[in-house]
Amino acid sequence: MGTITQRSVADILDIRRRHLNPNLSVSYQQPLKIVKGSGQYLFDDKGNRFLDMVNNVCHVGHCHPRVVAAGVEQMGKLNTNTRYLHDGLAEYALRLTAQFPDPLEVCFFACTGTEANDLAIRLAAAATGGDQLICVDHAYHGHSPTLIEISPYKHNGSGGAGAPDHVHTVPVPDLYRGLYRENDKTAGQRYAQHVQQVCESLSVSGKRLSAFFCESLLGCGGQIVLPPDYLRTAYQAVRRHGGVCVADEVQVGFGRVGKHAWAFELQDVVPDIVTLGKPIGNGHPMSAVITTRKIADAFMNGMEYFNTFGGNPVSCAIGLAVLDVIEEEQLQQHALETGNVLLSRLRELERRHELIGDVRGEGLFIGIELVSDRQIREPDAAGADKVVELMRHRDILLSTDGPDHNVIKIKPPMTFSIEDAEWFLSEFGAVLDEIY
Amino acid sequence: MGTITQRSVADILDIRRRHLNPNLSVSYQQPLKIVKGSGQYLFDDKGNRFLDMVNNVCHVGHCHPRVVAAGVEQMGKLNTNTRYLHDGLAEYALRLTAQFPDPLEVCFFACTGTEANDLAIRLAAAATGGDQLICVDHAYHGHSPTLIEISPYKHNGSGGAGAPDHVHTVPVPDLYRGLYRENDKTAGQRYAQHVQQVCESLSVSGKRLSAFFCESLLGCGGQIVLPPDYLRTAYQAVRRHGGVCVADEVQVGFGRVGKHAWAFELQDVVPDIVTLGKPIGNGHPMSAVITTRKIADAFMNGMEYFNTFGGNPVSCAIGLAVLDVIEEEQLQQHALETGNVLLSRLRELERRHELIGDVRGEGLFIGIELVSDRQIREPDAAGADKVVELMRHRDILLSTDGPDHNVIKIKPPMTFSIEDAEWFLSEFGAVLDEIY
Repeated sequence: MGTITQRSVADILDIRRRHLNPNLSVSYQQPLKIVKGSGQYLFDDKGNRFLDMVNNVCHVGHCHPRVVAAGVEQMGKLNTNTRYLHDGLAEYALRLTAQFPDPLEVCFFACTGTEANDLAIRLAAAATGGDQLICVDHAYHGHSPTLIEISPYKHNGSGGAGAPDHVHTVPVPDLYRGLYRENDKTAGQRYAQHVQQVCESLSVSGKRLSAFFCESLLGCGGQIVLPPDYLRTAYQAVRRHGGVCVADEVQVGFGRVGKHAWAFELQDVVPDIVTLGKPIGNGHPMSAVITTRKIADAFMNGMEYFNTFGGNPVSCAIGLAVLDVIEEEQLQQHALETGNVLLSRLRELERRHELIGDVRGEGLFIGIELVSDRQIREPDAAGADKVVELMRHRDILLSTDGPDHNVIKIKPPMTFSIEDAEWFLSEFGAVLDEIY
Repeated sequence: MGTITQRSVADILDIRRRHLNPNLSVSYQQPLKIVKGSGQYLFDDKGNRFLDMVNNVCHVGHCHPRVVAAGVEQMGKLNTNTRYLHDGLAEYALRLTAQFPDPLEVCFFACTGTEANDLAIRLAAAATGGDQLICVDHAYHGHSPTLIEISPYKHNGSGGAGAPDHVHTVPVPDLYRGLYRENDKTAGQRYAQHVQQVCESLSVSGKRLSAFFCESLLGCGGQIVLPPDYLRTAYQAVRRHGGVCVADEVQVGFGRVGKHAWAFELQDVVPDIVTLGKPIGNGHPMSAVITTRKIADAFMNGMEYFNTFGGNPVSCAIGLAVLDVIEEEQLQQHALETGNVLLSRLRELERRHELIGDVRGEGLFIGIELVSDRQIREPDAAGADKVVELMRHRDILLSTDGPDHNVIKIKPPMTFSIEDAEWFLSEFGAVLDEIY
């Protein structure tokens, strides 16, 4: 009692097999036993250092001393619920809402991205009186029963039961592989017309629209940057039909895209509801929903929203420290500069390597799409898997995503440096040479 | 930046009004600004000490040094997800599952009680192929859209839309105020017959039962102890009709009931799924679901369950420390002894005070039902509110619950002592004298 036994990889795998959710996979063919994290690096039990290029949760760097200190100080002092008054909650509510354009001014605190999106569903229903939902194909918004319904990544994947009647799926606005492509300057508007068509057919059938959910950059959809005019056009249609627009920033918020604090700003829109998660607490379980006064007031129907752990003093102290670090270390600007270097160097690699079909991204959110045939854009999932495994043996951690599992996804802690980028590019180039 | 401004109660309330979820109430007419917690005590900004008799989340005491130390150590070392191997996760999975009787042996980690119950819904659906759910009247199982459907406390309260067609509500097995009362020795079985009737009518109509959800002691239902034979009889009916039995221990687990580690053990049953939350991490956002190998395997349908923060190294370190403290400080035995003293002294008070209609509980989970007329058991919500407000001015924190808002709820941190009990009893007696 009181100590944690040090176990071998085989023993840990055995315990997981016997006692842990069998429905949870481990990364890599040779799983890693990670014991320490610092900045953009993870360390295994043998002292090997790995460059973490895939964990966007530890946003300002694993175990950032400033964030840890804030959590440590508050944990020893007080950690209780929001029915009492606390300076930390007031400060954090002020600071967090100040990061958003008008009229986004009211926040709700919860514990996970799933809780945030589930709350967004409730807010939208209260504000609109509708129950019809629109989501984008291949999207993932969370693992609760309700969110699986608007997550084609889940409900159309194995074990899924498809979309229920009240959920309407629009095509992925993917300029590389979708219905309308990079040579079509009106692609964004054309993709948005599918949203409009759903709105119109709901009107005709007398059904009431609640919300259009869209990640501000598409994660499971394949690290996709929305085409120009997509959200602006789609939001107009949704609002014209009485619905509200939800921007899911759980994966991409807090300056990751470089040019802006929030990825929806790339599209020059202001959503009605924004959901925040993963990076918000640098790994501490917390999340938030930001909305307008009008929607928050519509939610005042007598049913209280109380979240046991949401907005507790420790979460607020940690959330504030994350905002401080982003600002003091100018991580948004850093993400822009590092991301631009990475993108332009990857585009050079793309010219040399037939395997790379597309390179896309914003800031430190980048996708590299691998293909076995550039002409027909044939997805190469096996190649992507191989790259990820080979890179792991070169001490660089990556993973794949996208409907065809052929997109290498890059979303490292924001402290990822130009030197890390050089290291990655050199190893990545070597791996491509090796397998091509 | 970097500091948290100290604000007045009025200023904090103003910020909350402008920027925070308006749908969240603050405790007490004169809200408390709490700045510190230690053991069973909370301290306000003026240095006043309050006895916390209502927070079951800070289970082993506010800011328990052992738990804080475990969190602090791990926060500075590593906090990442469960796709890598970690000794803490293996140890905690072993230790936590060892607390349960066979065949409960597989655990899933999540972040909140809501996430745990939402996962239980999914597990039950996978195991049974059914979608019909049975819940107990006035129950509360969480705030997600799916859980509001099985929470009459929410969906039948203000702003609620009632139960959907696939949810079937059975009467609260309340021996004081329900259909069958304390003088009926077969009340438990008679209440369970309502569960059986639902099962039978589902069979007749060809609908498929998924799960029967029941808190092992009823919280929002009014701090109710289940009558003998209730769960045993209900579980038999549910299983006979192909359903699974879910024990929601989010409020009452981890030794609170004194006689056992889990409140379902009071009923001499073994559930198919147990959900854990609030006390599991002493305030750290974490939760778990424990189930059988059979159900876990049925969940292996290809759709992965991954929870970003669930089971991370910090949560596991904290969860282990909580288990250690419960064991080392013998808090379960302590809850039994202190609870018994409290219950017997409250029953003495009941004989002297007409206002007390009923005293009930197990260990440190106690309800005191206030009535304005003992003969007709007329609920006295105003009296209960008054008692709570007056006790707050005597530095003791309580709250009310139950469908009629007339039940004073007692569920303090488990370190609540005999001396605290004496203090409470003396003040409580004085307050009853004052208002009666």
